[in-house]
Amino acid sequence: MTHDLIQDIFQTSFGNPILNSFNDFAGVSLPDLANLKGKLCISTDAHIVNPIFFPGGDIGRLAISGTVNDISMSGGIPLFITSSFIIEEGLSFDVLRAIAGSMNAAASEANVQIVAGDTKVVEKGKADKLFISTSGIGWIPEGRRIGGEMAQEGDVIIISGTIGEHGIAVLAARGDLKFTTTIQSDVAPLNHLIQIILESAPQVHVLRDPTRGGLATSLNEITLQSQVSILLEEDAIPVKPEVRAACEMLGFDPLYVANEGKVIIILPACEAEAALQTLHNHSLGKKAARIGIIKKDSSNRVLMKTSIGGTRIVGMLAGEMLPRIC
Amino acid sequence: MTHDLIQDIFQTSFGNPILNSFNDFAGVSLPDLANLKGKLCISTDAHIVNPIFFPGGDIGRLAISGTVNDISMSGGIPLFITSSFIIEEGLSFDVLRAIAGSMNAAASEANVQIVAGDTKVVEKGKADKLFISTSGIGWIPEGRRIGGEMAQEGDVIIISGTIGEHGIAVLAARGDLKFTTTIQSDVAPLNHLIQIILESAPQVHVLRDPTRGGLATSLNEITLQSQVSILLEEDAIPVKPEVRAACEMLGFDPLYVANEGKVIIILPACEAEAALQTLHNHSLGKKAARIGIIKKDSSNRVLMKTSIGGTRIVGMLAGEMLPRIC
Repeated sequence: MTHDLIQDIFQTSFGNPILNSFNDFAGVSLPDLANLKGKLCISTDAHIVNPIFFPGGDIGRLAISGTVNDISMSGGIPLFITSSFIIEEGLSFDVLRAIAGSMNAAASEANVQIVAGDTKVVEKGKADKLFISTSGIGWIPEGRRIGGEMAQEGDVIIISGTIGEHGIAVLAARGDLKFTTTIQSDVAPLNHLIQIILESAPQVHVLRDPTRGGLATSLNEITLQSQVSILLEEDAIPVKPEVRAACEMLGFDPLYVANEGKVIIILPACEAEAALQTLHNHSLGKKAARIGIIKKDSSNRVLMKTSIGGTRIVGMLAGEMLPRIC
Repeated sequence: MTHDLIQDIFQTSFGNPILNSFNDFAGVSLPDLANLKGKLCISTDAHIVNPIFFPGGDIGRLAISGTVNDISMSGGIPLFITSSFIIEEGLSFDVLRAIAGSMNAAASEANVQIVAGDTKVVEKGKADKLFISTSGIGWIPEGRRIGGEMAQEGDVIIISGTIGEHGIAVLAARGDLKFTTTIQSDVAPLNHLIQIILESAPQVHVLRDPTRGGLATSLNEITLQSQVSILLEEDAIPVKPEVRAACEMLGFDPLYVANEGKVIIILPACEAEAALQTLHNHSLGKKAARIGIIKKDSSNRVLMKTSIGGTRIVGMLAGEMLPRIC
């Protein structure tokens, strides 16, 4: 009966004709995207964030946004989402209803359909409240080639806004801070923003959302994928004063703190200004900034000109600085 | 570093050019299936089986087979699988390697590609060893309409083999039985079997894998979806003597025990013989049997002529008889 109740919660929240068919599969038509010339784009993520509610979001909004964003980083258009829930026995129905509502709202915001779902319940103490795994299916139009391996010498690096909010907001919600803060997670679906960027700057080479490991880790991954180096300008990287203050007190570097609503854009210099203008006109890109350039240098390093005039290596983080942040 | 090691295990096991691209998305081309006339088919499942190894299989084989089978129940061809792992801290790498190997073997058997993956680690005591969520993406050729809502009066009901093995095998592995048994789970990908059935019997109306809740629950769902009733012949339903014996000792009805490698086929009477012949010639269908028919009767009941000559109602099971069976 519990199982039926839970199914009811999700079916009511996500209710659409496909999910309501009661088959274990969803048959969906691909929209008429350039007559289907192109590729499918597929991604998946398990979400184990602790706690499940945090300032600015919850595990439901995180699960939908994270998967929408992974698809969007291909330049593709996210279409369908699957969602499976592992629920610890005893989790209240009100909590489940709130999370399902939040997922539904995020899916509407991103204009994606939740087409398949599953719920499993485990005994108390065998999970931590709620884990959500999502997969995304999207479409990459023919001819679009965006990926971490595409960065080229002379490309400009843009970040779509201030960094580090998600990680600090989750830490604050955990009660791990010795001070209070008003920082909210930036968790948001970025697909609409990315589509308009690609209209104004069609030659984008790399899109990457700097989630686990933050901006520094994502940039290091890109140097390895593209076999290039990166030169950053520390002063150009936007960080909210509250995040900077929190990081100083915690001994963290904001470059390594997770984001859930930001994107790194790497593109030819000739299109950088157009992309920045588009970003600045969008609610999710107001603080976008040009933060560095791609260098042809086979050492595959991320270097940073610091505020005080020196240059330092921004290394890859070994391991996870903050566990269960997403 | 743990995280990197784990990624290594999965990347080595599943290694294919798509997974190895190090982007958070996989771009995949749809094969030339009748020039893409048709629909995408999408499914998802969370797997929380306890224990993670059981006679005849493990959580890895279960995850791949379950998702392949969900897609196959649409008559569609499974193509791509995503897989996300929630790992309890302290789980040994040998166990992970064994599970990843098992997933890879099942994917090869089913001829599907694991194209996207994610791993998350939670603290000891916050999960139970390993949970795996899988999603499947397949293709339903144009004109194929198979689903629980398609059963029609006079249709014949076939089961592809003996029932109840998976549930009893998992219980045995848990040490919940007071006796020893040689029963093995039937967990297997059914997609190849189903494609050859559809060649010999192209008018199949319903395919359904009787997993959680067993044969009885699946048939009850179908009566509701199709607004029909069902008449079963108890003597025709194949059950291995060991399963029957175990069920008698446990007070279970094999009709409600989970299967992971069986399929219910509902089709016009004129094609039943052809389907049965195909089944009997395949290693996964040797014990296939005609077990009942669809009746036009708006009471939406599953009735069964019993061995001793009476007729009883086979009701819907309320709740879960066996938790964490899949």
